[in-house]
Amino acid sequence: MSGVKVLVPDDLGVKVLDESPVLEPIRYQPGAPWPADGDDAEVVVVGYENAPAVGARFADLPALRLVQTLNAGYEQWLPWIPAGVSLSNGRGAHGGSSAEWVVAALLNIFRDLRAFGDQQTARVWAHRSTETLIGKRVVILGAGDLAVNLAARLAPFEAEVTLVGRRARAGVRALDDLTDLLPGTDVLVAMLPADASTYRLVNADVLAMLPDGAVVVNAGRGGAIHTDALLAELTAGRLRAALDVTDPEPLPPGHPLWSAPGLLLTPHVAGSTEGAWERAWAVARDQLDRYATGGALTNVVAGPGTPAP
Amino acid sequence: MSGVKVLVPDDLGVKVLDESPVLEPIRYQPGAPWPADGDDAEVVVVGYENAPAVGARFADLPALRLVQTLNAGYEQWLPWIPAGVSLSNGRGAHGGSSAEWVVAALLNIFRDLRAFGDQQTARVWAHRSTETLIGKRVVILGAGDLAVNLAARLAPFEAEVTLVGRRARAGVRALDDLTDLLPGTDVLVAMLPADASTYRLVNADVLAMLPDGAVVVNAGRGGAIHTDALLAELTAGRLRAALDVTDPEPLPPGHPLWSAPGLLLTPHVAGSTEGAWERAWAVARDQLDRYATGGALTNVVAGPGTPAP
Repeated sequence: MSGVKVLVPDDLGVKVLDESPVLEPIRYQPGAPWPADGDDAEVVVVGYENAPAVGARFADLPALRLVQTLNAGYEQWLPWIPAGVSLSNGRGAHGGSSAEWVVAALLNIFRDLRAFGDQQTARVWAHRSTETLIGKRVVILGAGDLAVNLAARLAPFEAEVTLVGRRARAGVRALDDLTDLLPGTDVLVAMLPADASTYRLVNADVLAMLPDGAVVVNAGRGGAIHTDALLAELTAGRLRAALDVTDPEPLPPGHPLWSAPGLLLTPHVAGSTEGAWERAWAVARDQLDRYATGGALTNVVAGPGTPAP
Repeated sequence: MSGVKVLVPDDLGVKVLDESPVLEPIRYQPGAPWPADGDDAEVVVVGYENAPAVGARFADLPALRLVQTLNAGYEQWLPWIPAGVSLSNGRGAHGGSSAEWVVAALLNIFRDLRAFGDQQTARVWAHRSTETLIGKRVVILGAGDLAVNLAARLAPFEAEVTLVGRRARAGVRALDDLTDLLPGTDVLVAMLPADASTYRLVNADVLAMLPDGAVVVNAGRGGAIHTDALLAELTAGRLRAALDVTDPEPLPPGHPLWSAPGLLLTPHVAGSTEGAWERAWAVARDQLDRYATGGALTNVVAGPGTPAP
């Protein structure tokens, strides 16, 4: 047996990494001490594990060089990454699924499928025209993997898509331009990571600049939208929304968002489709193969190897 | 005033064609005698008019050379087209809207939006994985404008799309290959015109070859699917379906399809989106400009100028 030792939290991971000639997967129990034969592991893979319980033990691994997450989100791991260790995420595994959810939600709203479903239940055949995605002006907050995946899916629907990132670059407008963009925006999509700079970025001022009837979508993290501000616009019947994430989350019983008009709400399922875990492990294996063969990792988000901003 | 005289059935048509320097639109009342100044018209544009009432008067127009429909379907006009007159349809105006409906219906089914809507109504936050369009094998019966539009919209969702036409050609499989394709088909979409060759093409034998859980979609004409055969598969819980058209249509009260399980049903709205009529008139103007300037029409479906099959 040879290869880079990798501590993995599930059996699928053992199976996938076992197929690599340069990796040696070792199963660990999240929250328990590392297995004895994994003491010299260079890599730990993490998924939905409790970050403090697992992260506190990273210090027990003197050879640790890389923590690989199976998710796109990684904020919860940042406080636990030792100096000199890289953190790499699951970018590429979940973007398609989340982007698909956004298109599903938008088409559901514009093609009025909920109302037609009610008509079907009531056994009423009543024809009427609906809105369409054709010609809609869509602004995506976020210019990462999720946003690029969404833009690719929207393009053939003849929607006009604008990506907005922290700084302007080819194909991406700067966040400073948002004020100019909002009055001509039919759909505002938040696909932002959770950090201090994105917290409540979509606040009452931003929402007020959207035209009547615009649709606000959140498929990133709940905190990116100021819930009370959105709730006020929905209750007034001025804006519509599709939320897969909320703040607070899960949405507590009795929260007014449950009964807000013009809202399509799903319980954080945008990235949760059949095959998603297999796709996440395929991305992880690709990163770890690169690590083991001395190649450059493409998904590093913290520590050595992080791309310049 | 000069230009080719065109009889048009609505005010939008007068407005759109008036902007062309080579066309002279004249408003007519469907079913009434042609206006006196239109006696020498070379073109009649038709939409949802009663075909016998309007078509019977084509013989009163000695200069008639072209009938232009605003719709994609044109079968009802065929018996009324005089010898030597071309019939051109609205291909290109409605394909995007109908293809969009198919994607909307498929995403609604795979991402379980109806069930999540029920959860929202019941104020239940319960996460679960759903199916996805990613990796689905989609077979489209029909290789015309609607089918090509759909294939373009499905491509970025990482679905595997196969077009099936009457005869094999580049990018299109022959109808004779359908038997080989069906056992590996997750989604079978009918986007077929109504004629003798397509009537009940999707019959009990075709349905029986689909794997369990496959989704049958009809966004063409209702007669393409044998309703009783589909109903039996739905009632058995073996297949699922999304129908925008039915046979009979409209679906009569009390028809068993109203309460069939696993069915998403809408009342023939796939092509009916805001702006559709403007898009249809834009296509019509393009065809008529070509006619008036001696160019080749691209949408001829009967009479002189019909492309070889």
